[in-house]
Amino acid sequence: MAKLGFLGLGIMGAAMARNLINAGMDITVWNRDPKKSEPLVELGATLGESPADVAASCDITIAMVSDPHAARAIAFGEHGVIQGLSQGKGYVEMSTIDPETSQEIGEAVRAKDARYLEAPVSGSKKPAEDGTLVILAAGERSLYNEMKEAFDIMGKLTVYLGDIGQGSAMKLVVNMVMGGMMTAFCEGIALAQASGLAAEDLFAVLDAGAISNPMFRLKGPQIEQESFPTAFPLKHMQKDMRLALALAEEHAVPMPTAAAANSSFLRARSLDLGDKDFAAVWQAIKPPKA
Amino acid sequence: MAKLGFLGLGIMGAAMARNLINAGMDITVWNRDPKKSEPLVELGATLGESPADVAASCDITIAMVSDPHAARAIAFGEHGVIQGLSQGKGYVEMSTIDPETSQEIGEAVRAKDARYLEAPVSGSKKPAEDGTLVILAAGERSLYNEMKEAFDIMGKLTVYLGDIGQGSAMKLVVNMVMGGMMTAFCEGIALAQASGLAAEDLFAVLDAGAISNPMFRLKGPQIEQESFPTAFPLKHMQKDMRLALALAEEHAVPMPTAAAANSSFLRARSLDLGDKDFAAVWQAIKPPKA
Amino acid sequence: MAKLGFLGLGIMGAAMARNLINAGMDITVWNRDPKKSEPLVELGATLGESPADVAASCDITIAMVSDPHAARAIAFGEHGVIQGLSQGKGYVEMSTIDPETSQEIGEAVRAKDARYLEAPVSGSKKPAEDGTLVILAAGERSLYNEMKEAFDIMGKLTVYLGDIGQGSAMKLVVNMVMGGMMTAFCEGIALAQASGLAAEDLFAVLDAGAISNPMFRLKGPQIEQESFPTAFPLKHMQKDMRLALALAEEHAVPMPTAAAANSSFLRARSLDLGDKDFAAVWQAIKPPKA
Amino acid sequence: MAKLGFLGLGIMGAAMARNLINAGMDITVWNRDPKKSEPLVELGATLGESPADVAASCDITIAMVSDPHAARAIAFGEHGVIQGLSQGKGYVEMSTIDPETSQEIGEAVRAKDARYLEAPVSGSKKPAEDGTLVILAAGERSLYNEMKEAFDIMGKLTVYLGDIGQGSAMKLVVNMVMGGMMTAFCEGIALAQASGLAAEDLFAVLDAGAISNPMFRLKGPQIEQESFPTAFPLKHMQKDMRLALALAEEHAVPMPTAAAANSSFLRARSLDLGDKDFAAVWQAIKPPKA
Repeated sequence: MAKLGFLGLGIMGAAMARNLINAGMDITVWNRDPKKSEPLVELGATLGESPADVAASCDITIAMVSDPHAARAIAFGEHGVIQGLSQGKGYVEMSTIDPETSQEIGEAVRAKDARYLEAPVSGSKKPAEDGTLVILAAGERSLYNEMKEAFDIMGKLTVYLGDIGQGSAMKLVVNMVMGGMMTAFCEGIALAQASGLAAEDLFAVLDAGAISNPMFRLKGPQIEQESFPTAFPLKHMQKDMRLALALAEEHAVPMPTAAAANSSFLRARSLDLGDKDFAAVWQAIKPPKA
Repeated sequence: MAKLGFLGLGIMGAAMARNLINAGMDITVWNRDPKKSEPLVELGATLGESPADVAASCDITIAMVSDPHAARAIAFGEHGVIQGLSQGKGYVEMSTIDPETSQEIGEAVRAKDARYLEAPVSGSKKPAEDGTLVILAAGERSLYNEMKEAFDIMGKLTVYLGDIGQGSAMKLVVNMVMGGMMTAFCEGIALAQASGLAAEDLFAVLDAGAISNPMFRLKGPQIEQESFPTAFPLKHMQKDMRLALALAEEHAVPMPTAAAANSSFLRARSLDLGDKDFAAVWQAIKPPKA
Repeated sequence: MAKLGFLGLGIMGAAMARNLINAGMDITVWNRDPKKSEPLVELGATLGESPADVAASCDITIAMVSDPHAARAIAFGEHGVIQGLSQGKGYVEMSTIDPETSQEIGEAVRAKDARYLEAPVSGSKKPAEDGTLVILAAGERSLYNEMKEAFDIMGKLTVYLGDIGQGSAMKLVVNMVMGGMMTAFCEGIALAQASGLAAEDLFAVLDAGAISNPMFRLKGPQIEQESFPTAFPLKHMQKDMRLALALAEEHAVPMPTAAAANSSFLRARSLDLGDKDFAAVWQAIKPPKA
Repeated sequence: MAKLGFLGLGIMGAAMARNLINAGMDITVWNRDPKKSEPLVELGATLGESPADVAASCDITIAMVSDPHAARAIAFGEHGVIQGLSQGKGYVEMSTIDPETSQEIGEAVRAKDARYLEAPVSGSKKPAEDGTLVILAAGERSLYNEMKEAFDIMGKLTVYLGDIGQGSAMKLVVNMVMGGMMTAFCEGIALAQASGLAAEDLFAVLDAGAISNPMFRLKGPQIEQESFPTAFPLKHMQKDMRLALALAEEHAVPMPTAAAANSSFLRARSLDLGDKDFAAVWQAIKPPKA
């Protein structure tokens, strides 16, 4: 069985690594803040010294960090992954990054005769814990095949989307649709409340119809109670909306609904809600008197 | 058992009346274009001569027409419902209309010592045929109680929302959320295609995640094939978006996502797509070269 | 010389009536709150008892009130203008109203064999005081000719635009463009400040370029100092944006920029800024920390 | 008198260089496509061999190219400006670029002990020809002082805005406001036409009021005739809107009007109008039937 490295043990990464360890895989972990490695080492993981060290000592190394900046740092920084890679090894970037960053990392990986796969995920804390993520893979097909077993542990659906950049692009599309749905949902709740309708009745009606979906079921009551335990941080959603709009700009695709939704997420960020769950965009949408 | 009148036999009304007849109810039908009454009379319905005649000869009369203008015409016009109402009779307005129109009709009904209930529905052609509509009732409680059996035949969920206007308001909220979801979805498909991703892969990924919903499943393939069999006409969706925005204006609730979505539905109307299904907003969103 | 009636002595009406009196015209005034009539009576105006009385005793009666609702009340209410009109008399509606309301008033006027002209104005407090309004006339051409002298006292440009409704429509177009410019301007100020640029430098640069205009010169410093003396109330601008969007809907013209701007004016209304100058939309646009 | 280099002889650069030559300055020119240098050499300019050669042979070198990508190429490319700079020389970047790119160029310039000034301009073809640009300078103050004479030949207003990045930021703010004004203007023209109003009447009314400005006067008739001679290419306006939105994102400033306007410019780009004047956004705004 391949020896797997896992870099980045935040909300998502820790849960994903735990599932791999619990499935009996041989995992070496590393995190910038070493405290977060401890619980996984207790579960049986090996502790790596640096990204370069993990990449050098494992067959395939997975990274799961918060944004393109962090992804570049872990790949290209001092003692970074690129330094540790060598012929035949694999690097699997599961962070949500823009296609351009993924291209650059991919080129650096290939320059070491190593193989690169991007595999961003759709799904936040709960699906990461439950092993029900959706995994959006693109890049080196042979590496995809070798990773399939691990992907099936971490997720419930894995799709192979072709060239590098396609996984990231799919992720951005999905999150952009999700962001637009969330602002439309919050506007609906605001209008319902302003019209004297109970939010519960709105949730029941929505759930009985054609747009019934798990996100409304989960987030509706949280919004009503204005309690926003962070599953997917608002600042990451806003970043993904921005990256999706930037990708659309490249292809001259106008996305007015997404642009309006993004303005609301930005307003929420300006209200210092970036670290709350993305449903906290509610605070930027509800009328002051509500 | 109460004798029921049914006015308006368009896509929705015909399906709803058919379900009532098939359930063994005593139904009198009327439609502006009398040809549409024929199939229902063949099923066992009685043919009414005018809205006034139906209202006079039935205990409770239901109306299901396309917009506030038509609802006013059928209520207040020559040989309209109001002329046929008398003490104790009931009038159930199931058309999607603005709260103000519903108030006016309700006042006219009560002025005849009759009872009024508004009960707009959420759901389009298929749920109307399948008897799985969501029914949003408000107004006279006693009439609601008497209608409950018929509502349960036409729908799978009926909620009683309080004063007149609340049913219409809930309907507008739900359709506004649906409209925003549809434009976000179409923008996502456009971005996916422009990025070289297959629409099928997008649909699979969306369906595996937190925003999985029946509308995406049904409309996605229709959008991909640019085939738009009319379940809910685009012009009616645009009207509902407009009414929702107007309701929000009254309460000073800004809804930027809905406003952007409405602009796309308007663009679609300007492309002569008003009679197509509302998913045809795709034609106004996709980039010219796609 | 014709005897002129003047109904509605708010910020705008009082200034316009004063100019007519100062020019030596024979003016009869009326206002719902009679206190506002006093300064004009002191200047030489006759005091009317009711809209009907003014319309009956003058050759031509002008109305200048705040919205379609008030315009309907003054025309159709008890002791309203319509009751006082008779053959050959003229009624000049200078309030900003929607085309439909203007049509209805015009029809009622013509039903009394009287003549109707709508003549909404572009320009707020200062141009009203200075007699430099822009007057947008439409309707009965003979009445326009008779009013030309009075229009030239109140305004610096008068255009005759054709059928009833065209004056109102032009007014809405102009105010919609103005509203969009104001929100774009405020967004620019917000971005400048957030980027560490002085608002004064921005104003100097804008004033030296192709988009230099009196509104930016006047409102810029007010916005910088967050002092908003009411020249054109924000709630009226928001109403005009709404009416313009509704007119656009009728013609299936999508106006995404106007829709986004309207959302900001609505947000400002929800912050209780409706009675401030429309430049107070700044408060709804500036980031919380600015 | 200082020897000046001028790199980039497109619409803007050629006009600016010509004014410097005509004022008797000693100018060395270079352009990627050497044909564009010829008319200026005929006017008396010296022909440079490469950006590095110009920078090495002149005291101060000015660059005026189309976007950040071109600005980086001319600075950092083979035979680029950086290679030619040495102690005490000056580099003046007049292209419209994002603050980050300007920072990077500035750092590279300072690493050669040379001085850097960014000085993007507001104004397009005509002001460039007439020497009435607005020049937005930031960076090394001593270099600003030495450039003042040349700036006064090219422009009618020069402001010094502080640290590197502030000139670019001001430019983006101004163009963003201009872009929002243009889409609001086009929406107004579309609504006027759909309402049966003549565009000429709208232009006259706008020009008599508080938002009268040179851009509406110049572009209005062009839009009406759908003739778009390129003064400021639409693709550059869209790029500036994008950069302004990106700058706003950094500072968490929501700009919904700008976001909506940008969607229209993007739609215009998708209609292959990128090389037309930015007023051609009209084609993306007007209703299909107009």
